Amino acid sequence: MYRAPVDEIAHTLKSVAGLRKALETGRFGDLGEDLVDAILGEAGRFSSDEIAPLNETGDKHGAVLEDGAVTTPPGWKKLYQDWIEGGWNGLTGPEEFGGQGLPMLLSVAALEMWNSGSLAFGIGPTLTMGAVEALEKHASDELKAKYLEKLVTGEWMGTMNLTEPQAGSDLNALKARAEPVGDDTYRIFGQKIYITYGEHDFTDNIIHLVLARLPDAPAGTRGISLFLVPKFFVGDDGSIGERNDVFCSGLEHKLGIHASPTCTMIYGDGKFGDQPGAIGWLIGEENKGLACMFTMMNNARLAVGMQGVAIAETAYQKALAYAKERTQGRAPGHKGEGMSPIIEHPDVARMLMTMKALTQGARAICYSCAEALDMARVSEGEEAKAWSERAGLITPIAKAFATDIGFEVASLGVQVHGGMGFIEETGAARLLRDARIAPIYEGTNGIQAIDLVMRKLPLSGGATVSALIADFKADAEAARASNSLVFEGVADHLDQAIADLETATAYMQSALGDGRQTDALSGATPYLRLFGVTATVAMLARGALADMEAPEAAGRAALARFAAANLAPETRGLAASATAGAACLADASAALA
Amino acid sequence: MYRAPVDEIAHTLKSVAGLRKALETGRFGDLGEDLVDAILGEAGRFSSDEIAPLNETGDKHGAVLEDGAVTTPPGWKKLYQDWIEGGWNGLTGPEEFGGQGLPMLLSVAALEMWNSGSLAFGIGPTLTMGAVEALEKHASDELKAKYLEKLVTGEWMGTMNLTEPQAGSDLNALKARAEPVGDDTYRIFGQKIYITYGEHDFTDNIIHLVLARLPDAPAGTRGISLFLVPKFFVGDDGSIGERNDVFCSGLEHKLGIHASPTCTMIYGDGKFGDQPGAIGWLIGEENKGLACMFTMMNNARLAVGMQGVAIAETAYQKALAYAKERTQGRAPGHKGEGMSPIIEHPDVARMLMTMKALTQGARAICYSCAEALDMARVSEGEEAKAWSERAGLITPIAKAFATDIGFEVASLGVQVHGGMGFIEETGAARLLRDARIAPIYEGTNGIQAIDLVMRKLPLSGGATVSALIADFKADAEAARASNSLVFEGVADHLDQAIADLETATAYMQSALGDGRQTDALSGATPYLRLFGVTATVAMLARGALADMEAPEAAGRAALARFAAANLAPETRGLAASATAGAACLADASAALA
Repeated sequence: MYRAPVDEIAHTLKSVAGLRKALETGRFGDLGEDLVDAILGEAGRFSSDEIAPLNETGDKHGAVLEDGAVTTPPGWKKLYQDWIEGGWNGLTGPEEFGGQGLPMLLSVAALEMWNSGSLAFGIGPTLTMGAVEALEKHASDELKAKYLEKLVTGEWMGTMNLTEPQAGSDLNALKARAEPVGDDTYRIFGQKIYITYGEHDFTDNIIHLVLARLPDAPAGTRGISLFLVPKFFVGDDGSIGERNDVFCSGLEHKLGIHASPTCTMIYGDGKFGDQPGAIGWLIGEENKGLACMFTMMNNARLAVGMQGVAIAETAYQKALAYAKERTQGRAPGHKGEGMSPIIEHPDVARMLMTMKALTQGARAICYSCAEALDMARVSEGEEAKAWSERAGLITPIAKAFATDIGFEVASLGVQVHGGMGFIEETGAARLLRDARIAPIYEGTNGIQAIDLVMRKLPLSGGATVSALIADFKADAEAARASNSLVFEGVADHLDQAIADLETATAYMQSALGDGRQTDALSGATPYLRLFGVTATVAMLARGALADMEAPEAAGRAALARFAAANLAPETRGLAASATAGAACLADASAALA
Repeated sequence: MYRAPVDEIAHTLKSVAGLRKALETGRFGDLGEDLVDAILGEAGRFSSDEIAPLNETGDKHGAVLEDGAVTTPPGWKKLYQDWIEGGWNGLTGPEEFGGQGLPMLLSVAALEMWNSGSLAFGIGPTLTMGAVEALEKHASDELKAKYLEKLVTGEWMGTMNLTEPQAGSDLNALKARAEPVGDDTYRIFGQKIYITYGEHDFTDNIIHLVLARLPDAPAGTRGISLFLVPKFFVGDDGSIGERNDVFCSGLEHKLGIHASPTCTMIYGDGKFGDQPGAIGWLIGEENKGLACMFTMMNNARLAVGMQGVAIAETAYQKALAYAKERTQGRAPGHKGEGMSPIIEHPDVARMLMTMKALTQGARAICYSCAEALDMARVSEGEEAKAWSERAGLITPIAKAFATDIGFEVASLGVQVHGGMGFIEETGAARLLRDARIAPIYEGTNGIQAIDLVMRKLPLSGGATVSALIADFKADAEAARASNSLVFEGVADHLDQAIADLETATAYMQSALGDGRQTDALSGATPYLRLFGVTATVAMLARGALADMEAPEAAGRAALARFAAANLAPETRGLAASATAGAACLADASAALA
């Protein structure tokens, strides 16, 4: 059973992702390390003791749709109530509306723990938080006054309605329409699919954010507006009124996260109300909906990255416990009678070390994205711009790398279990099933790679990416300067990885500069992986170097050495692949005939 | 829906795996290419038209246990009957007992197709064929006379009973016991788990091969004997008599291959018969059971490798069809109105090319293992030994590499589908679930890597592995000598990969020579992968060079170029990892605390 790794999380926050330095700037009020530790400890307790035990039930029962109403699995509604009563929904919410205004660094750490407990649970509040952000930044004061506090406390949940059958990654193809009523409202018509927690029994009301087109809107994404569509209308006194014309017509039968209802939502079918059309209120300006939605999406991408880390951590813990308990054969050097715990077999140890290194690397990458978001918020001018761009640069890496390794680590976890891994009761297979969605939703990992290469590498003329790589170089230098045997080989391997990253980065920049977009696009996915692997090795070294007197120091150094010797060399092949260009896909149409 | 790629299979058999050369030796009787093509075509038809359409039903219904009887999914019993009536079970079976005595090369190609149609179906007959082999090589004439013909035709099915709860990879820990009755029979007692098709309604009788210990047997694997235990006793006239004391007490609830009943079998519980003890007959000599079982296991490992290829092929076909149909966005260079088919996006094309290259590479590796088995059978003396050792060398690579890529390709297939990939109705997720067992059973892939390094590299003092690598060098030379632009870069990339393979091979050999077993064991898994990747690139080149006038030639060359530029460079990192030795796992116990 999952136990939140609170100490490792705290160490990564403070010494790898820079929370300690951030607090020292004095820009985060009276937040101190003690409070951070207390919050992490309490979040860890809730996740380990309350959420994790309900995950298997959630998977088995799943969410059930009957007569338009969705019932969550036994115990889940109470779990959600307990969770919001603990104040967890408002951790980063605006203080003006009842939130605690804490840094993202704390929020992502807590998010990791909720998702380690249960991804199907953690994904719900993630969407509410996205809705809070969008409303806070773009909605009118009136809408804020009516909806924000209840979304911040979690009394109501929010949803995000983008996808339609013909419009997945490509929002140009969006068809849902919004007709102005004449007052400040619009009637919304259309079908949305894959709506996470689109309908459920957790809360009395559900606040849908919906992308739709106005009648005279320009084609493409410049003609999309964002609307707030409550499931039930809300009176000026906050009371819940009549049902709006929106309902859930179906749930998807999914590979994993069964407890999370994935809904088809029908707007404006005439099922409720006097005349067809779900009543919505505009958020932000007409035809500027995409910008509002992107506010939600960027942080949602980091949140999905946390899901990758979360699943990886749970899978690692489960495999580790099994490998210590299960005995088979005699490992080389095994002392004593009988069979060895399988963890003593080098091949099993390799799998576990790989799992831990990737998990810890992805965690550090994601947390450092949150650091950049926090620092951007409390900085000004050039400094704020630099932090903001850094957050933008890391976001696609955090999302794609962490979710890719989340699935890989879950698969290694199955393998460590041998035959037991394929049996559902063990739980390892469930993690694998749950993990598989994260590389897909919130922008497929292919989309993330394109975003990284096409939009993020050019930031500030390349200075943003150079600054991040310079940090990795500092890690290599620090490892070298430690002059310690426990870091043997780390600096050299890391140097090599960084050199590969620089080569591939230069290739991408020159391809974009020369208008050879297809060359850049062809290698985007291996380039992102190359970035993630290099960052992993650098950050593992950073974490190990940060506190060399700690009892965990030897283990952290061993993990950094392992990653340097085994993961860093992957960059050779990744760089080759990233820079192979469009030529390597020439005649693909013949090959794929 | 899966369509058997009969032409590509035939090409790989003939021109990559050497079937054409083998037939030219005249050692395979009157078997000619025409007959080969006819058999492949018919197997492809059966698989595409009869098996594949029932796979989804199989997954949904699964096998059901009630009152000790297992019911297979609707339509499956008839499918099995049709399949054996087609003579497919006896393809390689001994002609003396009603088989067709055809080469393994044909058998693995057919096996690929059955498993592409449905892995849950294909795994059943695979075990029967293993039982046929073990009986043919080790059983008394009496046992052969009574059981072999019905197993060859498929009228009865066979099973393989090794695993017990405490004895998975480690058969030393086996506890099932066999007590001599005094005549030529034994009473068997014990529990066996994970018994594939241990109970079902396909056939009137089931012939279990069971490993158990005699009362005075030495400890460890030298005290294990193999017994034939029929579900129903068989009269001398072949008639079916009383029930033996064996039954299925439970089915596993698995991640995938739901239609394949994975049984817990109880022997000697006293449920049937006058007194407790399932009656069994000894196969081979007392305490030599493991050798008999290995006869089954080696070919079973190749058969499981074919499952990896099979799933990969089906996943590739499904993803390709989707990518041609689904439109999103505008790919660079897209002509015409509206959105592009997603196959035109470089990132999607990369995924599909990777899927096809890995599938085709794994197929070629597995087929070339079958070639070696066939040639060993028809050769004598040193030649037979060389072929036999080559088969032994390739077997662990075929099993582990093909099943690893089977899962990876299935996962890429999910990714190509985007959100649809996570929805069960699409079928892509089902392939992923099914694929996950193959890296585990018939010896985990970690065990395969150990087998490769510890037992196969030393064969003939290293001459066996050198000879195989020499073949890859010849492929590189041929690509260079072609002097054709369509092979640009192939020879150079392949040279580099081969150099990496040689470096790592030399490292392993010197580690074993110096008694540094742990160094070898620590890098065994990346070493196996390195071997598989190099072989993939070499064999793709070989296949493309074989028939440069064919209509498929441009596509094959494009695939070889893609693999050379993108897969071959992975060997840099794999070689580093394979040669990192035990040092990289030092202090693992601290890191994994």
